[in-house]
Amino acid sequence: MAGGHTVAAFDAELAALHAAVDRMGALVEQQLVGALDSLATADAEKATQVIAGDAAIDQLETEVEAMTIRLLALRQPMAKDLRDIVAALKIVSNLERMGDFAGSVAKRAVTLAGLPSLPPLGSLAWMGRSVVAMVADMRRAYADQDATLAAAIRDRDGEVDAAYTSLFREFLTYMMETPSQITACTHLLFAAKSIERIGDHATNVAENILYLVDGRLPSQERNKEDLSSFAVALPSVPESEQN
Amino acid sequence: MAGGHTVAAFDAELAALHAAVDRMGALVEQQLVGALDSLATADAEKATQVIAGDAAIDQLETEVEAMTIRLLALRQPMAKDLRDIVAALKIVSNLERMGDFAGSVAKRAVTLAGLPSLPPLGSLAWMGRSVVAMVADMRRAYADQDATLAAAIRDRDGEVDAAYTSLFREFLTYMMETPSQITACTHLLFAAKSIERIGDHATNVAENILYLVDGRLPSQERNKEDLSSFAVALPSVPESEQN
Repeated sequence: MAGGHTVAAFDAELAALHAAVDRMGALVEQQLVGALDSLATADAEKATQVIAGDAAIDQLETEVEAMTIRLLALRQPMAKDLRDIVAALKIVSNLERMGDFAGSVAKRAVTLAGLPSLPPLGSLAWMGRSVVAMVADMRRAYADQDATLAAAIRDRDGEVDAAYTSLFREFLTYMMETPSQITACTHLLFAAKSIERIGDHATNVAENILYLVDGRLPSQERNKEDLSSFAVALPSVPESEQN
Repeated sequence: MAGGHTVAAFDAELAALHAAVDRMGALVEQQLVGALDSLATADAEKATQVIAGDAAIDQLETEVEAMTIRLLALRQPMAKDLRDIVAALKIVSNLERMGDFAGSVAKRAVTLAGLPSLPPLGSLAWMGRSVVAMVADMRRAYADQDATLAAAIRDRDGEVDAAYTSLFREFLTYMMETPSQITACTHLLFAAKSIERIGDHATNVAENILYLVDGRLPSQERNKEDLSSFAVALPSVPESEQN
């Protein structure tokens, strides 16, 4: 009877842990959507709200960590339960980073809202929607402990990386064609990089879900198609420099 | 006697865990120094070696994680021992990211080595040296479990962030003055951001050391002086666009 009681209490604590992780995931998704909206609509006020909203994610991370440490100390879990708790610890660390990156996008949005002209934002919006979809699926895969969905998320990260590489080249050419947009393009490139990194962290979470569900350790090899580090756009030499 | 035996075995496993974490820290420091050298000397071959070297860090992370999970499962540690193991898990996750960022710097170095002309690299080199010093101190603070040193590292992160913000403005002006260096400056800005992020992660590790040593949970408030997201350099309108 005492054993049954302990098991029920442990299950309740584990459920509370899952709920807290999901709450943090929901906040991250909301922050990302808000940051992308503020960027697309040049809405500095909305962006400022997103920046302020990051504190709630940090607070939840601290709470979840305290829960995991208490569970480890008091319950001394084994096998699947242990993996569940270790995965939560790793997942919230990724979620906290994702929240930071959403905040970074919002900070760029504040600056961009004050600039006189911006380059076309279509590629960035497309990339943003892809990453929002990854984050939504990541949350569903965690809630349902769905290894198939988690594996599919991991495979999609390569597409986001490829989109970012294209965008990097595109923005380099805008900068060369329209030097007055150099500041805007630079901030947009960093915003794009932050969005791409949110996709990377969603992929890390997907790998933690695979580990949680069936003990698979994440493979170090995954699609790495962000080749933007190697991108070069050669300028046509401006007339003023040809002499 | 059996108890004494178990304690000795546990201490040996904990020492092995510490040694593996430190080995990973040493590799990260070496990779960072190599990446900065390859950038400063435009040495694509050295940069390529650094890129290849990241796999060893990833491999060590996997090994340390397996060690921590085994220790949690078999030893069911309490109090300081539990914190020690949780801290190791969090520290190696930061070290893995630091290794990735060193690899990112090296990737930029490969591209930059192929470009015809670069802007002045003095600020970047200075920032790089500051972060290398932080990483070296981070390793020492972990090895000696030195909370005073760990707290000092955390306070220094603000200086690196401030240096990055200055550098961001500086490179925006280079791009406006010399459009033929836009590609180079963009890659250098991302390299600088990666170096700044290595400093952030060294700071996270310092906070994990504080937690390990005396159970202090990291404060969410720390010096945040990277204001580059808000930096704007307004262009003087080029002559070619004045008509």
